[in-house]
Amino acid sequence: MRLLYPENVEDIALGAAVLGTGGGGDPYIGKLMGIQAIHEYGPVSLLSLDEIEDDDLIVSSAMMGAPTVMVEKLPKGDEIIRAFEALENYLGRKIKATMSAEAGGLNSVTPLTVAARLRLPMVDCDGMGRAFPELQMVTATLYGISATPFAMGDDKGNGVILNTVDNRWTETFSRSIAIDMGCTALIACYSTTGRELKEWAVPNTISLAEEIGQTIREARATKSGVVEAVRGVVGGFQIFKGKIVDVERRTVAGFARGEATFEGIDEYTSHTLELNFQNENLVAILDGEIVVSVPDLITVLEAETGEPITTEGLRYGFRVVVLGIPCDPKWRTPEGLALVGPRYFGYEIDYTPVEERYGRQSKES
Amino acid sequence: MRLLYPENVEDIALGAAVLGTGGGGDPYIGKLMGIQAIHEYGPVSLLSLDEIEDDDLIVSSAMMGAPTVMVEKLPKGDEIIRAFEALENYLGRKIKATMSAEAGGLNSVTPLTVAARLRLPMVDCDGMGRAFPELQMVTATLYGISATPFAMGDDKGNGVILNTVDNRWTETFSRSIAIDMGCTALIACYSTTGRELKEWAVPNTISLAEEIGQTIREARATKSGVVEAVRGVVGGFQIFKGKIVDVERRTVAGFARGEATFEGIDEYTSHTLELNFQNENLVAILDGEIVVSVPDLITVLEAETGEPITTEGLRYGFRVVVLGIPCDPKWRTPEGLALVGPRYFGYEIDYTPVEERYGRQSKES
Repeated sequence: MRLLYPENVEDIALGAAVLGTGGGGDPYIGKLMGIQAIHEYGPVSLLSLDEIEDDDLIVSSAMMGAPTVMVEKLPKGDEIIRAFEALENYLGRKIKATMSAEAGGLNSVTPLTVAARLRLPMVDCDGMGRAFPELQMVTATLYGISATPFAMGDDKGNGVILNTVDNRWTETFSRSIAIDMGCTALIACYSTTGRELKEWAVPNTISLAEEIGQTIREARATKSGVVEAVRGVVGGFQIFKGKIVDVERRTVAGFARGEATFEGIDEYTSHTLELNFQNENLVAILDGEIVVSVPDLITVLEAETGEPITTEGLRYGFRVVVLGIPCDPKWRTPEGLALVGPRYFGYEIDYTPVEERYGRQSKES
Repeated sequence: MRLLYPENVEDIALGAAVLGTGGGGDPYIGKLMGIQAIHEYGPVSLLSLDEIEDDDLIVSSAMMGAPTVMVEKLPKGDEIIRAFEALENYLGRKIKATMSAEAGGLNSVTPLTVAARLRLPMVDCDGMGRAFPELQMVTATLYGISATPFAMGDDKGNGVILNTVDNRWTETFSRSIAIDMGCTALIACYSTTGRELKEWAVPNTISLAEEIGQTIREARATKSGVVEAVRGVVGGFQIFKGKIVDVERRTVAGFARGEATFEGIDEYTSHTLELNFQNENLVAILDGEIVVSVPDLITVLEAETGEPITTEGLRYGFRVVVLGIPCDPKWRTPEGLALVGPRYFGYEIDYTPVEERYGRQSKES
C-alpha cells in the first residue's frame, strides 16, 4: 500500500494517456479532477493486487462517452460518485475498493476521484492494459465476469441500473443511455471478488502509468530524448515520425470516430501514415498497408515534448512520433482476438503482433 | 371485487381498443395473452379504487414499443413478469396490486397477465383514460408522481432499472432501451400508494372497456347499429365515414408514425379526412382543417362490425367510421394540455374540445 498525492496523479494521468492509445480521456482533465479530489479529501491508498483479500468486493469506475464531448463538458463533482453509490446500494454489500476499467488520461484517474471522495482504496491494475472503445472489451469478459449489475449516472441526477445476459448487451444499452445523457456518463461496473480479480486483471497498470509519466517529466527537464525514454519503459517500436496534415472527426453512435493523416519527416520522408480511430486508435496504415492493429497499442506522442495526443487532440501541423506497443498477452488468445481483434472492428486482416513486424527494425535503429 | 374470466378479457381487450385511439396494442394479441394467462393461472380479481387501502403499493405494468413490431413479436411468457418482479425486488416492498398505465387492446390486458401469473389483483382504473405514445403522458405526472424506479425487461432476459429526475427523462432513456430491445419491452413503473392513486387515476377504465366490448359483441349478434351502440356507451361524435385510400407508415425513433387518408362516403362524399398518428391517432384533419386533436380521442371503427382499427391495422379499402370522443377532464387543464395537447406534438393550434365543435351537429344527427 502506498498513498497517492497530487504529484503522483499528474504522472499517472500523463503516463496513462500513453497507454490510452488515443482514448481513455484527456490527461489534462484527468489531472485536474484527480488533484482537486485529493486536495479536498486527502491522499488515496493504492493497493497492489496481492494486498486484496479473496473475498473483497471490487468495482470498476469510469467515464463513458465520446472524448470529443468530455473535453467540453466537465463533471461537476457529485455525479462521479453517484453511479458508484447506486451500485453499492443495489448490491447491498460494502464495496472494498475501486479500480480502473481502462488505462487512459482520464479513466486511470476517474476511480481515484471516486476513491478520494469515498475514502476507499484503489487497486493497482486495470481491465485492459490500455483503453478500448466498447465496454465489453475488458479482460474480465474473457474470464466470464459480468459487467452487470451496471450503474450509470449523469450530471442532472439521472441514474440507471442494467442487468444483461452478456457484456455486449451492456455495451448496447449503456451506449444508448450515454448518448441520451449527452455523450458523457459516469459508470460503475464489473463487480468482482478479489479472487476473481487476481485472475483477470492486468496488474500494476497505475504504477506503470506513473513510471511512464515520471519518465516523460524527467526527460523533458533534462532535455533528453523523450520518445526514447518512453520506449525504455513501455517497450514498443517507433513506427512513424511525421506531421499531421489532415484530421476527419465525427461523433457517430456515441463514439468519436475519424481518420488522421500524417506526412513523414526525417527517415519517413515521402511516406504517409493514416490512423483510424473509434475513441481509441484502431489501426495504423503505412503507405496503404495496415502495419499495426488492435489489440496492440498505437500511441501518438508530440515529437519534442513526448506529450501523448488523444484522438480528440489531433490537430493539423503537430509534429509527432507514432509508437506501436505490444498489448497484454491475454488479448492475443483466440478469445481475446475475437473480442478486440481487427476483424471485430471491420478490418479483414489477421492480427500480426507488432514485434513480429518491427522486432528486427527496432534492433537496427 | 369481482373475478375476470376469459369472456371478460375478450370484451375488455375489444373495448379498450376503442379507448386506445389507434394505439395501446392490438386487441387480438391482448385477448390471446389474457385468456391464456387465466387458463393457466385462474381468474383475476378486479378491485375498484375504493377497495384499495391508502397504504397499499400499486404498480402499473405495460408493454412499450412500436405496435407495428409488437404484432410480429409476441411475448413468450416469463418476460411479462420479469420487469414487475425486478421492480418489487428493487423497491424491497410487497406490491399489492397492478394496473393499466393506459387503455388499449393490449395494454389494458398486459397487467391482467401479470396479475394472473403473480396471483395479484388488478385495479379498475388507468393513467390516461385512453392511450398515449409517450410514457410521461399519464395523469400521474400531473400529480407529481414519479415514473421511477422504472423497470423494463426483454425476451432475452435483459433488465433495466431507471431512476430519473423527471418523467420526460424516463421516456427518453426507456425509449432508447426499448429500441435496443427490438422495439418491444415489458415495463413496470409509477409505483404509487392507494391514497395517491385515488387522486390521480382515471377510474373504472377496465369496467368501461368491458362495457364497450360487450356492447359491440351484442350489437353484432343482433345485427343492430354497432357504431351507434358504441357511441351510446362512450359518448362522442361521428366525425367521418369513409374508405381508407392511403396509409403511410414508418417506424421512427421507436414509434409507429404515419398518416392515413380516407375518402368520404354517404353524407361525407367528396370530403377527405386525414389522420396523423404516433402509435396513437393525434389529429384528424377534415378537408385540410384539424377538427379533432389530442387529448380528445380519435377512434377508427370498421363500419359494419364496429371493430376498432389500430394504427398498425389500417389497410387500403377498409370502410370505417371515425369517432371523436371527449378525453378525461384532467387532460383539459393547462398542465394537462402542456403534457399532451396538440402543441406538444408539433401542431400549432389551440386545443378545442370535440364537443364544442360537434356538440350541435351531434344533436342534429
